[in-house]
Amino acid sequence: MKLIPTKIPIKVGNKYIAVLNQRAAHNFDLQPGDRVQIKNGRKAGIQALLDVSENGDIKDHEIGLYSETWEKLKTKRGDRLSVSIAEKPICIQYIKDKLNGKRLSEKEINEIIKAVVADDLSDVEMAYFVSGCYISGLDDKETVYLTKSIVNNGNRLKFKKKIVVDKHCIGGVPGNRTTMIVIPIITALGLTMPKTSSRAITSPSGTADTMEVLANVKNNAKRLQQIGDKIGGFITWGGGVDLAAADDKMIRARHPLSLDPPGMLLASIMAKKHSVGANHVLIDIPMGPQVKVKNIKEAKHLAERFKKIAKMLGMKIEVLISNGDQPIGNGIGPVLECIDVMKVLKMETDAPKDLIKKSVKMAGILLELTKKARKGKGEKIALETLKSGAAYEQMIKIIKAQGDKKASLKPAKFTKKVLAKRNGKVRAINNKLIAHIARTAGAPLDAEAGVYLHKKLKDKVKKGEALYTIYADIKDRLKYTEQYDLNGAYTIK
Amino acid sequence: MKLIPTKIPIKVGNKYIAVLNQRAAHNFDLQPGDRVQIKNGRKAGIQALLDVSENGDIKDHEIGLYSETWEKLKTKRGDRLSVSIAEKPICIQYIKDKLNGKRLSEKEINEIIKAVVADDLSDVEMAYFVSGCYISGLDDKETVYLTKSIVNNGNRLKFKKKIVVDKHCIGGVPGNRTTMIVIPIITALGLTMPKTSSRAITSPSGTADTMEVLANVKNNAKRLQQIGDKIGGFITWGGGVDLAAADDKMIRARHPLSLDPPGMLLASIMAKKHSVGANHVLIDIPMGPQVKVKNIKEAKHLAERFKKIAKMLGMKIEVLISNGDQPIGNGIGPVLECIDVMKVLKMETDAPKDLIKKSVKMAGILLELTKKARKGKGEKIALETLKSGAAYEQMIKIIKAQGDKKASLKPAKFTKKVLAKRNGKVRAINNKLIAHIARTAGAPLDAEAGVYLHKKLKDKVKKGEALYTIYADIKDRLKYTEQYDLNGAYTIK
Repeated sequence: MKLIPTKIPIKVGNKYIAVLNQRAAHNFDLQPGDRVQIKNGRKAGIQALLDVSENGDIKDHEIGLYSETWEKLKTKRGDRLSVSIAEKPICIQYIKDKLNGKRLSEKEINEIIKAVVADDLSDVEMAYFVSGCYISGLDDKETVYLTKSIVNNGNRLKFKKKIVVDKHCIGGVPGNRTTMIVIPIITALGLTMPKTSSRAITSPSGTADTMEVLANVKNNAKRLQQIGDKIGGFITWGGGVDLAAADDKMIRARHPLSLDPPGMLLASIMAKKHSVGANHVLIDIPMGPQVKVKNIKEAKHLAERFKKIAKMLGMKIEVLISNGDQPIGNGIGPVLECIDVMKVLKMETDAPKDLIKKSVKMAGILLELTKKARKGKGEKIALETLKSGAAYEQMIKIIKAQGDKKASLKPAKFTKKVLAKRNGKVRAINNKLIAHIARTAGAPLDAEAGVYLHKKLKDKVKKGEALYTIYADIKDRLKYTEQYDLNGAYTIK
Repeated sequence: MKLIPTKIPIKVGNKYIAVLNQRAAHNFDLQPGDRVQIKNGRKAGIQALLDVSENGDIKDHEIGLYSETWEKLKTKRGDRLSVSIAEKPICIQYIKDKLNGKRLSEKEINEIIKAVVADDLSDVEMAYFVSGCYISGLDDKETVYLTKSIVNNGNRLKFKKKIVVDKHCIGGVPGNRTTMIVIPIITALGLTMPKTSSRAITSPSGTADTMEVLANVKNNAKRLQQIGDKIGGFITWGGGVDLAAADDKMIRARHPLSLDPPGMLLASIMAKKHSVGANHVLIDIPMGPQVKVKNIKEAKHLAERFKKIAKMLGMKIEVLISNGDQPIGNGIGPVLECIDVMKVLKMETDAPKDLIKKSVKMAGILLELTKKARKGKGEKIALETLKSGAAYEQMIKIIKAQGDKKASLKPAKFTKKVLAKRNGKVRAINNKLIAHIARTAGAPLDAEAGVYLHKKLKDKVKKGEALYTIYADIKDRLKYTEQYDLNGAYTIK
């Protein structure tokens, strides 16, 4: 059929979408979600997903094209497009197989991921794949296939050194900015540790948000390879380099129900390590009542899965099950976390001890894993690298290489102190509530906003003493935080 | 936030959809699939699903509205809309529960269906519900809850008589037009039998497509109630009366993978019976190698489920497990099927015997179920009603009441005969292949197109004799059918 193109001037998610009116769709026996092949003379041809419009703005002999489709077809007013019915990609059958509980082969998973990256699948089709992975699970082999497919269908970074180090934290602990201390320590000692981090989705800050206060986190792949080869490392936003494109695409389908199928989560993490060529990796699994992993059984199970997958991918790995009972450091929110990090790197006397301890421990494990330190000596070397100022100097180099923001690190001007209502000892801190409060105060979009903790677990407090301070750029946002039981964030007995 | 509306002039599936550009979405911490509350001054307020545009056609301070959203908000150029972040509907949690294998309560299922009917759920969210029902299954209770919810959230028809009869066939057998014979028989005998049928999705014709050759099948609910009360019955297109609106909405999510979760299928069928007030129902389950139900175990299992669900809904039911080895009647395609049906109703000498036999059997079962006939006497009464011409007269009344099309019942002009290549007996007829050929020839969109079978199972054939004739309106379409192994449709030995 020959149809006249009409432009729908918005760009929705890179997918090629074409719209017919109801009568035309019925005549061609097409339904929403079906595929059509569209050709514009000799210029270009594509497959598009079909939507059906119920009103008369698109006429019987017309085909509506969203911007990306219009552009891809090099459409000009007056063109006539040839439209024909196209087959579904073969991977639709594999997605159905997964829903039916089948184990998928490497080839089958690769077909699905290839289609995801090429934007050949609709959000609904991706949602079915996510459902299948969520309910039927992915076994170790499938997880490895998925990891490799994500890597092979995305960008990769390559560094000159043979040993490439990486780390990952399963998340859920506010203020946990060890990455910004571990990378300077490890790279100051001559190792290569290229770190791509995420932004916050529901938390008050992601490592990329915090690092962005100090430096540009949107360097391109070529520049990142130069920095990695020259000074050993960087801390950048992963979304800027398209390392695991499939992963970013699938988020559209996962977001509405916040689904995190375990195998998909594992593959997503390992793909990001694999795509920067990491072969020595530390996974941090914080455990606690208010983080993702609730108990030791879950933590050990997850650790075992990481070890198996890493072995199958040829990576050396260590897994640290850490304490996730309370936030790490005192600051929560991009600027407040930067203040903590810089205090640690400068080893100032009021630097948060728990952040030092955890970072040194992690760096120590990595130094031993890479044989840069003898067994039992890793932590000592890591601490010395901090104390000598070498890690701080290295951080300055990293910031300069990425693009120095010359941040003044001043928290937001409106503040509210939350005071203890009784004498006692801090018995519990509600991670989730603290995170909600920091986010409501404006973090991470307002980088200066957040929460600063004056008291941590086991600290003695007196009635009237400040437990924590809330910072906000906008006065109203302080008020919004009052929807929460602010004193309930601390249990004092 | 106050935003300027900009119209996107297409209407996509009734859902309210609003579009922000990428920067605005990021600033408000919103992702595609999130919900926003939009108010237009005092005029109107709605919840819309968010999409995010990646180009500059929607400015930072603008919000794109598809036609239905624009109209619902009574938007005029120059309006300023208040937009705020809205919560997800509570049923999103229930959908996630279903994915996690939980059994849902009546209230929970009703919340989901209410949201489906109100267009509050995105296609992705519906796909997750379908996934959950597909993989975790729906037990009998959930199936009944789903049936009731679909009925309560859609239109209903009410008739004066206490006994309301209905039938349903699980499908998959080409030419199986018993409905158009059973309804005239049953209603000629004074019972009420209001029949809503579907159109073909992938088959060469649905009952609604075939009936549409003879009569209008788009009467509204009020008119159908009048017809039902006055003459006892009709044969109409279900999609025209919105009886099971939820069902029609979910097809958008089910179509891409052609998923038919058994519980959903059952609920969909029973809801259609329930919503016309049917309390005496016959379910026909054809069984054979090339229909939906392959063997007696499957058939009995399905029959048991139907019986249980019907009991829980307070319906009397009979289930007929019938032979699905070959097409019923000789014609396949709307007009060719009408020719068969009218021959049966007029009891012409060349009327297809298998269609008479099956129709009489089904009508007989219903007459006994409703106590209109004594046990063992149903078929006899049904056959007499055909022979006396009463059923034919009744069909003429039904056609007139719905709107007579005064069809001439002439098959398409281009024909191709497929000839036997050897002597022997017909041992098998490939239902699926015959259906593909009829569809490729143009059925059901070209009502005159299709296939007419000259030979049925166990018939003797001689080399060179015609097995079947293909009819097409467009000569090329005859040629297209040659992509199939036309002689392979018959096994002759």
